[in-house]
Amino acid sequence: MAELRQNVVTREWVIINPERTKRPHQFAGKKPVETQLPMSEPECPFCVGNEHLTVNESFKISEGGNWRVRVVGNKFPAVESTGERVRKIDGIYRSMSAVGFHEVIIEHPLHNMTMALMPDEHVADILTAYRERYREIRWDERVESIIIFKNHGETAGTSLVHPHSQLVATPVVPSQIRNRMEEAMRYFDDTGECVCCRTIKDEINAGERIVYENENFVAFIPYAALSPFHTWIFPRRHSSSFDETTDLEIRDLARCLRAVLAKLHYGLNNPDFNYSIRSVPTRELHVEYFHWYFTLVPRVTKTAGFEIGSGMYVNSALPEQSAEFLRNVVVP
Amino acid sequence: MAELRQNVVTREWVIINPERTKRPHQFAGKKPVETQLPMSEPECPFCVGNEHLTVNESFKISEGGNWRVRVVGNKFPAVESTGERVRKIDGIYRSMSAVGFHEVIIEHPLHNMTMALMPDEHVADILTAYRERYREIRWDERVESIIIFKNHGETAGTSLVHPHSQLVATPVVPSQIRNRMEEAMRYFDDTGECVCCRTIKDEINAGERIVYENENFVAFIPYAALSPFHTWIFPRRHSSSFDETTDLEIRDLARCLRAVLAKLHYGLNNPDFNYSIRSVPTRELHVEYFHWYFTLVPRVTKTAGFEIGSGMYVNSALPEQSAEFLRNVVVP
Repeated sequence: MAELRQNVVTREWVIINPERTKRPHQFAGKKPVETQLPMSEPECPFCVGNEHLTVNESFKISEGGNWRVRVVGNKFPAVESTGERVRKIDGIYRSMSAVGFHEVIIEHPLHNMTMALMPDEHVADILTAYRERYREIRWDERVESIIIFKNHGETAGTSLVHPHSQLVATPVVPSQIRNRMEEAMRYFDDTGECVCCRTIKDEINAGERIVYENENFVAFIPYAALSPFHTWIFPRRHSSSFDETTDLEIRDLARCLRAVLAKLHYGLNNPDFNYSIRSVPTRELHVEYFHWYFTLVPRVTKTAGFEIGSGMYVNSALPEQSAEFLRNVVVP
Repeated sequence: MAELRQNVVTREWVIINPERTKRPHQFAGKKPVETQLPMSEPECPFCVGNEHLTVNESFKISEGGNWRVRVVGNKFPAVESTGERVRKIDGIYRSMSAVGFHEVIIEHPLHNMTMALMPDEHVADILTAYRERYREIRWDERVESIIIFKNHGETAGTSLVHPHSQLVATPVVPSQIRNRMEEAMRYFDDTGECVCCRTIKDEINAGERIVYENENFVAFIPYAALSPFHTWIFPRRHSSSFDETTDLEIRDLARCLRAVLAKLHYGLNNPDFNYSIRSVPTRELHVEYFHWYFTLVPRVTKTAGFEIGSGMYVNSALPEQSAEFLRNVVVP
């Protein structure tokens, strides 16, 4: 039976309307392609030997003289790292200079590698690169918010195949993040609890939407998931900003993220996906009412006019069934 | 020079970062395809002769014994028209029975027609069908919000080619609509003005983002457009709900909508697009602080991890240039 569900964290309503004719594996996409590509591509700016094609290297993890992960400037940045933050207000027209940071995390030396197939230690290096850049950039006075994200596959908006993710630091707090913070603050005022901590506790108790757990992290399909296999990864320990993650936690997060990505890769035939890390705005430190988290959205369905017109989603899969399907995927 | 712009109506920030290498016509998509299809398709449930394949016809405009526009029930409705609105609250888990309306507006008897190529009078019939269904459904006690929308083309989420649009009436106010109403109310309290009326006045004065105007309607690219050619159509007269539109206004709206769609069709080679009509929630009547409007999003770019992680968009075209391009498209 179809129902509407409200996500207590985002306050968004979702229409959960499972297509009875579709089983979870029928959302599976294309065949795996990365491994069929060459290990290196002469024209690829992220390949070994082409380091001169990248600009402004800001971080690197190496081993035995070879790099494992590199962070460089985006060649076509959405926001520029030079210049002042200048705000203009002219009646209803409000603008600001596009200053901030736009960096690319090159995840692996091999052109045809994908995170789902990497060893956990390599995923930990990638997450360490995220954290180190976050830790440095958060102190820039022009920056208000840092978003780390990955686009995997063409429908998810990738333009370059070589495995990479991105970091964008903006000079404003996006209005959606502002709204969610306000709602979380209200929940805290009403109950004395972080709404995310409450959700993690209740999801672990309920169990039916859990995809993967380890000592420090838990991955689950939200009760009001926006789309099939939409997954959240939360640290168990209350922590409001990604850069508070310790080395030990990074190792557990790498195991958790790799496990979820491998389940998607093998269970759904390497679907396109986006993930992003949401933290509180950079000027807020150790707030009690909000938790940082990973949100992962496999692009197995399309958004259309209803979503654009209402901000509401229709999810054609039951979250409990999607979670059960992913729990049961055996990763070789 | 890249800048961030804030939309005063939605409060969303957008990074306006024109790709210097891309001219407006380079966003053009596929060639026109509809007219190359057959005028009728034996399997199509929306074609003439297959009326028995549709259910629950609720409205029809006919001429000389032939229908011009029909409204029928969606065969796979997101929400059901029967049943009670029942709310369940179990700790953080909030749900509601999926009751409401999900109807399909079959826009034309011909399988291979598209709104951009229809006479204005036919577009007026389609808009009349929207309005009449809105006027009836708004009084259903279970309904809180009505969204009318159209998906044109595969990347915009269409599954059936035959020209059609949809109406979904939900038993809740979507949180995004609730947020925008609150912001508009605050603007009204601060200034005594409807934020949309102010925007329309200022856009007409500025002129540079206008795409099309007539006596009762104005179409423009928003100052903080989310994507290239994102267009808003507003009634000049303050009116908070689409069903308040008069017959005379429907005629002008049809001319305006058809003009914009034809400019997109000829200027950008029949791009995929979504449009939707946003009104105030159905229980609010004649409110002073908000305006109904059409929002139209050509699907010429992809949303990715940054948009999912922040709710912010990066627009790779300058709104003033997009508007100039559309103003200059000559419709044969």
